[in-house]
Amino acid sequence: MTELTYTENIFAGTRAELLAKISQQLKPKRFKHVQRVEQTAIALAKRNAVDLEKASIAGLVHDYAKQRPDEDFIAAIKQYHLDPVLLDYGNAIWHGVVGAELIKHELGIYDEDILNAVRHHTTGAVYMSPLEQIVYMADYIEPQRDFPGVDEARQLAKTDLAKSVAFQAKHTLQYLVENGKPVYPKSIDTYNAWVPQYPTI
Amino acid sequence: MTELTYTENIFAGTRAELLAKISQQLKPKRFKHVQRVEQTAIALAKRNAVDLEKASIAGLVHDYAKQRPDEDFIAAIKQYHLDPVLLDYGNAIWHGVVGAELIKHELGIYDEDILNAVRHHTTGAVYMSPLEQIVYMADYIEPQRDFPGVDEARQLAKTDLAKSVAFQAKHTLQYLVENGKPVYPKSIDTYNAWVPQYPTI
Repeated sequence: MTELTYTENIFAGTRAELLAKISQQLKPKRFKHVQRVEQTAIALAKRNAVDLEKASIAGLVHDYAKQRPDEDFIAAIKQYHLDPVLLDYGNAIWHGVVGAELIKHELGIYDEDILNAVRHHTTGAVYMSPLEQIVYMADYIEPQRDFPGVDEARQLAKTDLAKSVAFQAKHTLQYLVENGKPVYPKSIDTYNAWVPQYPTI
Repeated sequence: MTELTYTENIFAGTRAELLAKISQQLKPKRFKHVQRVEQTAIALAKRNAVDLEKASIAGLVHDYAKQRPDEDFIAAIKQYHLDPVLLDYGNAIWHGVVGAELIKHELGIYDEDILNAVRHHTTGAVYMSPLEQIVYMADYIEPQRDFPGVDEARQLAKTDLAKSVAFQAKHTLQYLVENGKPVYPKSIDTYNAWVPQYPTI
């Protein structure tokens, strides 16, 4: 598996070379997490006729920027002229939306479907491609995840990917509100776009 | 009480005359509700050194437009050049935000604190004056309200008005999310501004 060579216009190198670059950015625990997300994403991609190579790369890189210092994100928001309102947030939002820019410039990955899967893996989005849905779900249900409802989420992801996205959007928001934690405004757009159509989740 | 004369630059007429105008707009059940909200608002105003006359008027008029047909709101959004995004919503949002414009033009009430209390009585707002907080809470806890937590809300409103606002913002959002109902995006701004500072509500 590690010797897999990716299509050159997606990532110029082998999976082993991509893994080496990612391992320089992440502590061992998180490095294992992204590999579990990759495998979960590949399994979901097989069920949903999504490109396995993109699922592999998006799964591996989704947390590429998670352990970067705040200054790196702030510099990138300014350098790449991202929405200045992002400056009001923190790592939880930055590692996806801003992380995608770092992946583009540091890893040479320009595929917008992969980049959007990274951008939206924490908050979801109103419109999510099948690849975006897969990475959003794989991060939620990878084998080491353990929370009330994870088995239902795993089952749903296998049988109805879109419904499983709605499940995560609802239960994540419910957790935040029950605990009085701040809610990223865009995640309400995700909630409104996905949840009300599934009254039973 | 009904013979109370309001200060002329707030409402040009007696309370009895205002009641007569409101009663033309509302079915008997809702007409009784607004009078209960008025009395609750006056009680909260006394505790919080807020103008009793404004509490009376804001309580009475908060649902003035609730039973108007959709066409009236749509016409008003266009005529008064309100945010066109309002056209995507419905009566639940319109009767406050658009209702305030109808109150201005039909009842001659121009006091912005009263109008803001009407505008924000359903969704709350990031910044709410004491009068706005009072009407928001009075509508939630008037004597006929009956839901799990209403006694706690009543107690909190008496002892800590701002904390009771946070309580309502949290529990209303929690109810919507648990039931998979759509959430008005601005009410997330209210939630983020009020709730996270009170971890125990």
